[in-house]
Amino acid sequence: MTELELLAAAAREASRRLAFLPTDEKNAALLDLASGLESRRGEVLAASARDMAAAERAGLGGPKLRRLELGEKGLTQLIEGVRQVAALPDPVGEVTRDRVVPSGLRVRKVRAPLGVIMMIYEARPGVTIDAFALCFKAGNACILKGGREAAESNAVLARIARDALQGCGLPEAALTLITTSDRDEIRQLLSMESQIDLVIPRGGESLIRFVHEHSRIPTVQHFQGVCHALVDASADLEMALDICVTGKTSAPATCNALECVLVHEEVARRFVPALAERCAAAGVELRGDGLVTSLAPSAKQAVEDDWGREFLDLILAARVVKGLDEAIAHIQRYGSGHTDAIITKDRASAERFTAEVQSSCVLVNASTRFNDGFQLGLGAEIGISTSRVHAFGPMGLEELTTQRYVVEGSGQVR
Amino acid sequence: MTELELLAAAAREASRRLAFLPTDEKNAALLDLASGLESRRGEVLAASARDMAAAERAGLGGPKLRRLELGEKGLTQLIEGVRQVAALPDPVGEVTRDRVVPSGLRVRKVRAPLGVIMMIYEARPGVTIDAFALCFKAGNACILKGGREAAESNAVLARIARDALQGCGLPEAALTLITTSDRDEIRQLLSMESQIDLVIPRGGESLIRFVHEHSRIPTVQHFQGVCHALVDASADLEMALDICVTGKTSAPATCNALECVLVHEEVARRFVPALAERCAAAGVELRGDGLVTSLAPSAKQAVEDDWGREFLDLILAARVVKGLDEAIAHIQRYGSGHTDAIITKDRASAERFTAEVQSSCVLVNASTRFNDGFQLGLGAEIGISTSRVHAFGPMGLEELTTQRYVVEGSGQVR
Repeated sequence: MTELELLAAAAREASRRLAFLPTDEKNAALLDLASGLESRRGEVLAASARDMAAAERAGLGGPKLRRLELGEKGLTQLIEGVRQVAALPDPVGEVTRDRVVPSGLRVRKVRAPLGVIMMIYEARPGVTIDAFALCFKAGNACILKGGREAAESNAVLARIARDALQGCGLPEAALTLITTSDRDEIRQLLSMESQIDLVIPRGGESLIRFVHEHSRIPTVQHFQGVCHALVDASADLEMALDICVTGKTSAPATCNALECVLVHEEVARRFVPALAERCAAAGVELRGDGLVTSLAPSAKQAVEDDWGREFLDLILAARVVKGLDEAIAHIQRYGSGHTDAIITKDRASAERFTAEVQSSCVLVNASTRFNDGFQLGLGAEIGISTSRVHAFGPMGLEELTTQRYVVEGSGQVR
Repeated sequence: MTELELLAAAAREASRRLAFLPTDEKNAALLDLASGLESRRGEVLAASARDMAAAERAGLGGPKLRRLELGEKGLTQLIEGVRQVAALPDPVGEVTRDRVVPSGLRVRKVRAPLGVIMMIYEARPGVTIDAFALCFKAGNACILKGGREAAESNAVLARIARDALQGCGLPEAALTLITTSDRDEIRQLLSMESQIDLVIPRGGESLIRFVHEHSRIPTVQHFQGVCHALVDASADLEMALDICVTGKTSAPATCNALECVLVHEEVARRFVPALAERCAAAGVELRGDGLVTSLAPSAKQAVEDDWGREFLDLILAARVVKGLDEAIAHIQRYGSGHTDAIITKDRASAERFTAEVQSSCVLVNASTRFNDGFQLGLGAEIGISTSRVHAFGPMGLEELTTQRYVVEGSGQVR
């Protein structure tokens, strides 16, 4: 066996023990991990500083460099996050259905771990701890392949987690950190379908495409969010302005940020100039169709490429539509199935919009920014899936499990 | 666009309408399909006869030929099956969670269709109707690629279904029958990830491998069932004999048939000779390890290859184990995660077995043959998934859906 095969086999072996580990043992290990991170703060921060210095020497800058940073505040949040995961209910063993069928069998459907989860991610070293905590609480072993730039931070964080596992008498292979960045070796891992049950790529488009192309293991993708908001004829326009502007400004680089506003023609004359003014004040570039630019001369003329685009920046597209039909058709054509919202006072419009727009999260009179595991009450999330299969939308603990049948009989045969 | 691309685009378009089609309209179309099958019995039977004649000319025989046959009785069952699917509750729109989170948002998790499902299957033409009925009831369009041998039957069945759709004013593209068997064209379809949401291969190992290797679309596999039964030290041995022998004889070629019996050494001396006798009487070839053959001279000596093998025939492997540890280790090594059973009177053994054996269905004191959608109370099934991701075990209507969030607010922003 190659070294990678040995690592994967050890992860599988560890997953067998985790699958039926009592909740209190899992929580104890997570709390030990939190304490370990607390008492070894200096070690973590020093590793992060080494990563940052190397990245700066290599010319990394802007958002990438910021994502790489793990400072005092970020570390405190990370530790708090681990404690929160420990406090969440254990999904494993939850009985989601329990009935006696005509043959007399008692049929229970029970949540169970997926097994071994591989996560491939970039930059943010905190993911090493977040992902481990969630996978572990859901009874899974994880194989983590972080970004090269975060190598030192990831190594220290993984070490602390493995020390916590060992201290609790649990298999260290519950967390395996892959240090290679060799694409051939990653491809090898992506072909180990008998040892790895699920692959979650989280990062830029090229990473996701690479994983998708080469994985023989099921993947759940966290792809782009091209989020729309429809300002309906009956919308409260002040509410709509708030939702549209903050939807862009509160975190422009996130996947649930608003990218495109669709304005019902009946309110365009009142809404578009106000939107342009608020955008200008907030430093947001507005790119509109002909009607938008005629109503708001400060808006730039949008080009075809601006529809369906995830700007990841302070840019917002806007288009006037004749009504719900045209808005829904636009979203079906250009949307990414991530998050879409309608601002309306009309019950029938809201119902039609939520029924026909089949995105992972559809909101009525609220910001697209709420499509997030914490905000929707999942407690924590490992990312937001844009695959409809297995998990769609924020992936919390439940989405890191499967369900199986446990059946009790008294000698039934067929 | 190629012809296949046009077909897939039409399926996607149809799926948009099916996604929010009211339950009564779906049921009406299914009942019209049942009536259509009833009134066009002659057409179906004639097409099946042509397929059978061609298959016999081509030298097809045995179980393959039997699976191809769609006679009077099979057709009646098929029609009854469609009516049963119409009578099942509609999974779409089911609210699986409903809560108000601290921000005041009302967050509902709602079942929604997957979209477009492609199914690739062999021989049995009835799958054309079964698969369509289930996909359609769950709000999905389907693309069906049946076996070449069943071409005539499949064409007539699909025509009747499309006529029912058209008669109800629904898009015929809700069912697309692919008639090519060209592997390049199948590969083309398997790469249409933006039009097709899920691929379900159902058939022999080579079909499943082909799909798994070439699909860029998520797949759920219905792979082999290497089912085990452990006869524990405290087992009711008469019950164990019934479960073991009928587990093999009632349908030896199905995936939930029993393949291997593990016998606790404490009861081996009493159980193995009785098992051998019952097997001999039922025409089942017993292949045992050294202990089994010494206790039952009629048993053949098993070779390494007999462990973990899906015989699909009247052959049963048997091994004596020291206890639960060895039995579980055997199942983890040789099992396929499909179905495993324990026969025991000991509560602790049952609990340990059901916790540590993580198969899609684990049974206590019942036959492995119960891992089946009808038997477990799902109403109907499209197959039994051996993938842990998305669906594990029998796939019924629920497993042909996803879940998404529908959120109502009153102007909340972040």
